[in-house]
Amino acid sequence: NAWSRRVASSPPFHKLAMTLIVLNAVVLGLEAIPSLSDSWRPTFIVLNRVFQGLFTAEILIRFLAAKSPAAFFRDGWNSFDVIVVAVAFVPAAGPTATVARLTRVLRIVRLIEVSQEMKLIVGTIIASLRSLSRLIVMIVLLLYSYAIVGFHLFHESDPANWGDLGKGMWTLFQTMTLEGWVEKQKVTFDAQPHETWIFYSTFLLFTTYFVLNLFVAIVVNNLQT
Amino acid sequence: NAWSRRVASSPPFHKLAMTLIVLNAVVLGLEAIPSLSDSWRPTFIVLNRVFQGLFTAEILIRFLAAKSPAAFFRDGWNSFDVIVVAVAFVPAAGPTATVARLTRVLRIVRLIEVSQEMKLIVGTIIASLRSLSRLIVMIVLLLYSYAIVGFHLFHESDPANWGDLGKGMWTLFQTMTLEGWVEKQKVTFDAQPHETWIFYSTFLLFTTYFVLNLFVAIVVNNLQT
Amino acid sequence: NAWSRRVASSPPFHKLAMTLIVLNAVVLGLEAIPSLSDSWRPTFIVLNRVFQGLFTAEILIRFLAAKSPAAFFRDGWNSFDVIVVAVAFVPAAGPTATVARLTRVLRIVRLIEVSQEMKLIVGTIIASLRSLSRLIVMIVLLLYSYAIVGFHLFHESDPANWGDLGKGMWTLFQTMTLEGWVEKQKVTFDAQPHETWIFYSTFLLFTTYFVLNLFVAIVVNNLQT
Amino acid sequence: NAWSRRVASSPPFHKLAMTLIVLNAVVLGLEAIPSLSDSWRPTFIVLNRVFQGLFTAEILIRFLAAKSPAAFFRDGWNSFDVIVVAVAFVPAAGPTATVARLTRVLRIVRLIEVSQEMKLIVGTIIASLRSLSRLIVMIVLLLYSYAIVGFHLFHESDPANWGDLGKGMWTLFQTMTLEGWVEKQKVTFDAQPHETWIFYSTFLLFTTYFVLNLFVAIVVNNLQT
Ligand code: NA
Ligand code: NA
Repeated sequence: NAWSRRVASSPPFHKLAMTLIVLNAVVLGLEAIPSLSDSWRPTFIVLNRVFQGLFTAEILIRFLAAKSPAAFFRDGWNSFDVIVVAVAFVPAAGPTATVARLTRVLRIVRLIEVSQEMKLIVGTIIASLRSLSRLIVMIVLLLYSYAIVGFHLFHESDPANWGDLGKGMWTLFQTMTLEGWVEKQKVTFDAQPHETWIFYSTFLLFTTYFVLNLFVAIVVNNLQT
Repeated sequence: NAWSRRVASSPPFHKLAMTLIVLNAVVLGLEAIPSLSDSWRPTFIVLNRVFQGLFTAEILIRFLAAKSPAAFFRDGWNSFDVIVVAVAFVPAAGPTATVARLTRVLRIVRLIEVSQEMKLIVGTIIASLRSLSRLIVMIVLLLYSYAIVGFHLFHESDPANWGDLGKGMWTLFQTMTLEGWVEKQKVTFDAQPHETWIFYSTFLLFTTYFVLNLFVAIVVNNLQT
Repeated sequence: NAWSRRVASSPPFHKLAMTLIVLNAVVLGLEAIPSLSDSWRPTFIVLNRVFQGLFTAEILIRFLAAKSPAAFFRDGWNSFDVIVVAVAFVPAAGPTATVARLTRVLRIVRLIEVSQEMKLIVGTIIASLRSLSRLIVMIVLLLYSYAIVGFHLFHESDPANWGDLGKGMWTLFQTMTLEGWVEKQKVTFDAQPHETWIFYSTFLLFTTYFVLNLFVAIVVNNLQT
Repeated sequence: NAWSRRVASSPPFHKLAMTLIVLNAVVLGLEAIPSLSDSWRPTFIVLNRVFQGLFTAEILIRFLAAKSPAAFFRDGWNSFDVIVVAVAFVPAAGPTATVARLTRVLRIVRLIEVSQEMKLIVGTIIASLRSLSRLIVMIVLLLYSYAIVGFHLFHESDPANWGDLGKGMWTLFQTMTLEGWVEKQKVTFDAQPHETWIFYSTFLLFTTYFVLNLFVAIVVNNLQT
C-alpha cells in the first residue's frame, strides 16, 4: 500500500502509463489495416494480451494507492479505466468476439487522459450538456412529433422512410443534417405535394431554428466562462 | 366554481394532468408502430377516447376555475389546449380521418406545458421571431424574385424545377439548405452555362449572407437578454 | 416644379407609389404561373405597360421635385429607380425579349423601398461588404489557386469538372457549399487516391476556415454597431 | 550590398515586384485554359522562364540587402519566397513534370504579400491554429477511434468505405462535412440496422459538437483581440 502509493505518484510510472496508452492506440489502428493484421495476427493477439495485462496492473497499483475505494471511484476517469479493463476480459472469440474487439477500442479514449487540458475539455462538454438539456429535449420532441405525423401522412406512399416510428425518426435525423432530404421528398411529392412541402419545410425551419439556438446557447455559455 | 378552483389549484390535479399528457404522447408514438397498432387497434381506439374525455374534463375544470373567460383565454397555452381538444372531436373516420389523426398529434405539443422552462423557451422563440420579421421578409422576397427570374430563364430547359412560381420557390428553398442544387444546375448548365452559374451563385451568396445575418441577429438578441 | 415638390412630399403620393410597387410585384409573380399567364397574356401585356407608365411618371415627379439633378442622384435608391425604369424600355420582343423580361423583375427589388428599415438593412450589408473585402479576396484567391492546381492534377481523369480554369472554379464553388463533392472525388480517387484526398481535404479545411472567419467578422461587426 | 540595400528599399522596386507577382498569377491562370495554352505553348514556356529569372533576381537583391542571412530568414515570408523559387528549378519535364508545374502555383500564394493586411490575416490564422491545437487533436482522435470501430463493424458489409483504417478515416471526413453519409449508411443499414444508426448518429453528434466548439473558440479568440 505504501509501496503502491510511492509507485503511483512517481513520474516514471505516469510516463510509462501514458506511453502504454499511446502505443496501444497505435496497435489498435494497425490492427484495422487488413494487409498488416492478417499476416501478423499472432503478434497482435499477443500484443493485446500484454496491453491488457499491463493496464490491469497499472489500475491495480493506482487503486491500491488510493486512500479508499470510494475516493478512487469518485474520479470519473478512474471508474472509466476500471470498466474498460474489466470489459476487455470478455472472451474475444465466439459470440462475444465483436463486443470484445469494440470495447478494446475504448482504450483509445484513454488517450484523453494523456493531457490534463483534454480531460478539462471533456469535463466542460459534459457540464455544458447538462445546461443544454431542455433544448435537447425539445429537439427530441420535435423529432418524435414529426415522426408520428410523417408516419400518418407518408407510411403508404414511402414505407422505406416512414414505415414506422423508428424509421421516421431516423429519416428526420438525416433530414436535420440537411443531407438526402431532397431525394426523400421526391418520393411523396407527386402524390401529396401540399403535405410534402408543408411537412418538410416546417420541420426544416423548426429544426434549424432549435439547433441554431443550441449553438447560441453554447456560445453564450462559453463566453461567460 | 369554488370546487373547480380548489381542484385546479391542487398539486395532485396538476401532476395527474402532466402524467396524462406524457402517457398520451407515448400512446400516440406506439400507434405509429404498425406491428403494434394493427394487432391492438381496438385498445388504441378506446385509449384515444379515454384521453380525449380526460383532456376535455381537465380543461373544463381549469376553465371553470378561471376568474372570467377572458382571463382564461388571455393565456395562449389555454387557448391552444381548447383548440386541440375541440378539433379532436372531428370524426376519425370517413373523409376527415387523416385530419383527425393529425390533430391528435398536436397533443404532443402539450408536453411543452409539463415544464415551465420549456414554455419560456417557446415564448422567447415567438418573441424573437417578431424582431426578426424584417430579415425573414427579405429572405422571402429573395425567394420570390429569384423564383420569377428562374421561371423566365429555365422553365423550358428544366420544367420539373422551374415550371411555375410555386415549383421555383420550392426549388430555391431546397437550394437554400445547400442540398441537391448541384444536381439541379447540371440540367440547365449545358444549354445555358452563363445564366446557370450566375443565377445559382448569386442566389447562394445572397441567401447564405441573409441567413447568416439572421443567425447573427438571434445571437445578438440572446446575448442582450 | 413647385407643384411637383408639393405632390412628391404629400403622403398620398408616397402611399400610391408603394401600392404600385406591391401590385407590380404581385403581377410579376402571377406572370410566372403559365396556367394564368398563357390565358391572360393580353392583360399582362397591358398591365406591364401601365406599370411602366406609372413608374416613369412617379420618378419624373420625384426628379422634378429634387433641388438639383445632382441632389437627386446622390441617393443611390433614386439612381436605381431610374435605371430600372430606363432599362425596361428595351423592347420585350425579338432578341432582347429575355433581357427585357428580367429587368422588369428588378422592380421587385423596389419592394425594399416600401420599408425604411429594409433600406437600412441593405445599406448595412453593402457597408459591411466593404470591410470584409480582404477576406473575400482571400477566398477568391483560394478558389483561383486550387482551380489551377486542380486543372493540372485532374484535367485528364475528370475533364467535366476540371477541364479548364472556369470549370475548376465552378467545381470549387460547389465544393465550398459542401454539396456534391463526395461524388466528384470518386471520379479521380481510384487513379489518383493521394492527390485526391490531399487536394479535397486541404481545400475544404482552408475554405471552411476562411468562410468561418468571414462569419466571425460579420458577427463582430454587428456586435460593435 | 549598399547598392542592393538602396534598390530593395526603393518604392519602384517594391511596386515592380508586386506587379510581377500579379502578372505571374494571371499567366498561371491562362495556362489552365487549354484552348489558350495549347496554341501558345512556346510563349508560356518562355514567360515561365522569364518570371523564374526575375523572381530569382528579386530575392537575391532582397537577400543581399538584408543585414545578415539570419535576419533575412527570420521573416517567414522570405523563407517561403526562397523555397518557392528554389523548388521551381526542378525540371518541368520527365518524371518531375507535375511536381514542377504544381510548385509554380505556389507563386500565387505570393499574391498575399502584395497586401500588408493579408499577410496579417495569414499570421493571425497560423497563430490561432496553435491555440486551437487541442480541439483539433480531439477531432483527429474522434476520426481515428471511429475509423477503427467502423472497420470492425462494417469492413465486411461495406468494404469500399470501411475496408481499412485509411478508407475509414476518409469516409468519416466526408461524413463530417454532412455530405454523402445518407448514401453510405444505406449500404450497411439492412444487415446491421442498430450498429449503423448508433454508429453514424453518435459520430455526427460528437463531430458537430466538437466542430461547433472549434467555431466558438475561434469566435471567442477573435473577440478578445
Ligand atoms: Na448535402
Ligand atoms: Na449539405
